[in-house]
Amino acid sequence: MTAPTVSRAASNTDVRDRDLASVFHSWSAQGKISPLPIARGEGATLWDHDGNEYLDFSSQLVNVTIGYQHPKVIAAIQEQAAQLITIAPAHANETRARAAELILSHAPEGFSKVFFTNGGADAIENAIRLARLSTGRDKVVSLYRSYHGNTGAAIVATGDWRRIPNEYATGHVHAFGPYLYRSEFWAETPEQESERALHHLERVIQAEGPASVAAILIESIPGTAGVLLPPPGYLAGVREIADRYGMMLILDEVMAGFGRTGEWFAFDAFDVRPDLITFAKGVNSGYVPVGGVVISEEIAARFDDDVFPGGLTYSGHPLAAASIVATLETMAEEGIVENAARLGRDVIGPALRELAARHDVVGEVRGKGVFWAIELVSDPVTRAPLAAADMATIKSQLVARGLLPFIADNRIHVVPPAVVADADARRGVAIIDEVLGGF
Amino acid sequence: MTAPTVSRAASNTDVRDRDLASVFHSWSAQGKISPLPIARGEGATLWDHDGNEYLDFSSQLVNVTIGYQHPKVIAAIQEQAAQLITIAPAHANETRARAAELILSHAPEGFSKVFFTNGGADAIENAIRLARLSTGRDKVVSLYRSYHGNTGAAIVATGDWRRIPNEYATGHVHAFGPYLYRSEFWAETPEQESERALHHLERVIQAEGPASVAAILIESIPGTAGVLLPPPGYLAGVREIADRYGMMLILDEVMAGFGRTGEWFAFDAFDVRPDLITFAKGVNSGYVPVGGVVISEEIAARFDDDVFPGGLTYSGHPLAAASIVATLETMAEEGIVENAARLGRDVIGPALRELAARHDVVGEVRGKGVFWAIELVSDPVTRAPLAAADMATIKSQLVARGLLPFIADNRIHVVPPAVVADADARRGVAIIDEVLGGF
Repeated sequence: MTAPTVSRAASNTDVRDRDLASVFHSWSAQGKISPLPIARGEGATLWDHDGNEYLDFSSQLVNVTIGYQHPKVIAAIQEQAAQLITIAPAHANETRARAAELILSHAPEGFSKVFFTNGGADAIENAIRLARLSTGRDKVVSLYRSYHGNTGAAIVATGDWRRIPNEYATGHVHAFGPYLYRSEFWAETPEQESERALHHLERVIQAEGPASVAAILIESIPGTAGVLLPPPGYLAGVREIADRYGMMLILDEVMAGFGRTGEWFAFDAFDVRPDLITFAKGVNSGYVPVGGVVISEEIAARFDDDVFPGGLTYSGHPLAAASIVATLETMAEEGIVENAARLGRDVIGPALRELAARHDVVGEVRGKGVFWAIELVSDPVTRAPLAAADMATIKSQLVARGLLPFIADNRIHVVPPAVVADADARRGVAIIDEVLGGF
Repeated sequence: MTAPTVSRAASNTDVRDRDLASVFHSWSAQGKISPLPIARGEGATLWDHDGNEYLDFSSQLVNVTIGYQHPKVIAAIQEQAAQLITIAPAHANETRARAAELILSHAPEGFSKVFFTNGGADAIENAIRLARLSTGRDKVVSLYRSYHGNTGAAIVATGDWRRIPNEYATGHVHAFGPYLYRSEFWAETPEQESERALHHLERVIQAEGPASVAAILIESIPGTAGVLLPPPGYLAGVREIADRYGMMLILDEVMAGFGRTGEWFAFDAFDVRPDLITFAKGVNSGYVPVGGVVISEEIAARFDDDVFPGGLTYSGHPLAAASIVATLETMAEEGIVENAARLGRDVIGPALRELAARHDVVGEVRGKGVFWAIELVSDPVTRAPLAAADMATIKSQLVARGLLPFIADNRIHVVPPAVVADADARRGVAIIDEVLGGF
């Protein structure tokens, strides 16, 4: 039998030692990490190899929206594996077509094609490629507070620190986005923040030369940057700027899309229609690596006669397609997107607002659905971010109490699977409450 | 039941129509393609939805080395799906560690870590990143006759036409590699071609300024460019040049690695040791999207204390890891790499040399293992490539006779799964023989 030699009898120490001896980890100093070995999962619960149980408030990298080991999705993947596990993108495949049809069924009117990739980064690469080829222009304007992936153009489109050691792609320009709690525009109200952020974006574009800008690329709700809900009118205003200067609007829905915000697409809650939509994560909860671009009719039609100069071996991989079909069908059948909206409105939102009222260390809570951030400050007046050492202490105290958090800078992101039980969601917030009591 | 709605009763026309209505295809003009709908596969055989059978001489995109639907690999993937289908790279996972251990067991001495990606392109992105960070230099020298992937840096490292519409990454320089049949160096023997190609490479590096070059990046055997076996001494000479100027040598084994050439790594047949090895395709025959970088001890150690600024959500995905473990164990147990070597030496090689002797349209055949190219020319003296229209005719005639070929420019690549039966390999060459009789 050639099945993986995963011994359930292995201890945390065994697995961690083997991991550290041979696996090179993302975004880490390899000698300074102590990865938690996870043996199994179900719903919103994980267990390590020593039998400890964890309530998951991370959804890993905010991708396991449907929860761990959903039996319908697992069964569909197993069935596709038995039928036809791989086929090249040049062939036609019925499961792939069905996945594209289902994705398009959740997109606005006027979207006609799906280009499948292996994840979010290459979705961004190909959205940028489509925008550049459609406009004949080079530059892409994105936001400083953003993350778009780790490959050549995606990492330079990214705004945060991860861009800095990787600046080997051309044509990328960054602007500040709306973030009232730490306004870059001296704004005092959401309306003011929105209006000034739009003014700033347009001024950057004017200064760069609008005829050189192919696309505005933004996360509908910037995620790792802090779950930064756009203020009223912002996204509609970005659309207007894009139209005014003939640019494509790419909305990055890799983290926010497919249920995370309580909508199929995060932008559904706003008055905006993009030209290109990038997705990954929630589309199949990361059960199989996949991502892609949803393409408007206008852009797709440009490549009916002209060759699209992009592609990859695993584009439209049948196993990934089967996981998308099963995930989207199950999410619809079980009302998982609606449940995410309800959790945010009735359970997590109220609990986090109570938390904020009790702790001076909480500067702000914000979010919707199962997509929330608790911003921690050392001083509520100056809003100075809580120090990294304190954040590390908070993280280890949460894990010690059986809660797996998603920590980013000075924030705890509350991003559980959308199937988390109400009682577990409240229990998780109570654990955070207890730990924050020490700060 | 949420399994994919794949009706085995669907016809080719049904599936093709649904595909063309919603799926955007790689490297294509969308209105000019007619993708063949594949319903199932086994070993080296595929069937379409109308029940037609095809002998596969393509391995899709030269990835299905172990053949379609290998039962041991399918079972291992299904078992991992049932156990734990996804976990973030920050955690430890026993299957992931086992996959890294097995990959390292096939690498030369002195390689210590594996960084997993989603495919070959982001393997290249991260190998380039590691080389730049390790040397503090910017430029990457690669070959014009090459393909390295479709993302930001990978597509600009690529030498062929696919680079041209995508030149938005900095620091890429190209040189000519050895290719005696169409020598760029007026060479007449393999030794002369090797020596002159090395001289040319070193002159390009000297002219660029060696202190600005982080890495030499080459496919151990350039694949889509024509299965260009390096002449004696070439790869060893490239290693010497890299050492002379303190550069990293990245060998791209995405297509050639893990059995395709009858070796675990294609470079095993040559006297060379790289610093970084990129892989994808053959490592799991593309059953689950995955790729990665095998990292030398020296480079890995640089990131024990410093943060490695790269990463991705699906790095070390358990389902991909399980497919790697099962594939590599099965290939070892069943002697699949040795079989690839035997097929090249005793079956395909002799058959192709006979073919070449019979047809003036065959300019050259070259290859090893299950990795061969038949180069077609309209004139054996001038070596003018056979016209694209003739290649299209050849392709459709091969498919009509039940052979799925891999066509690139003026070449038929003979790249079947390494499990193809001897009789089928000979039958496939006989079909090519028959079709070439018309040219």
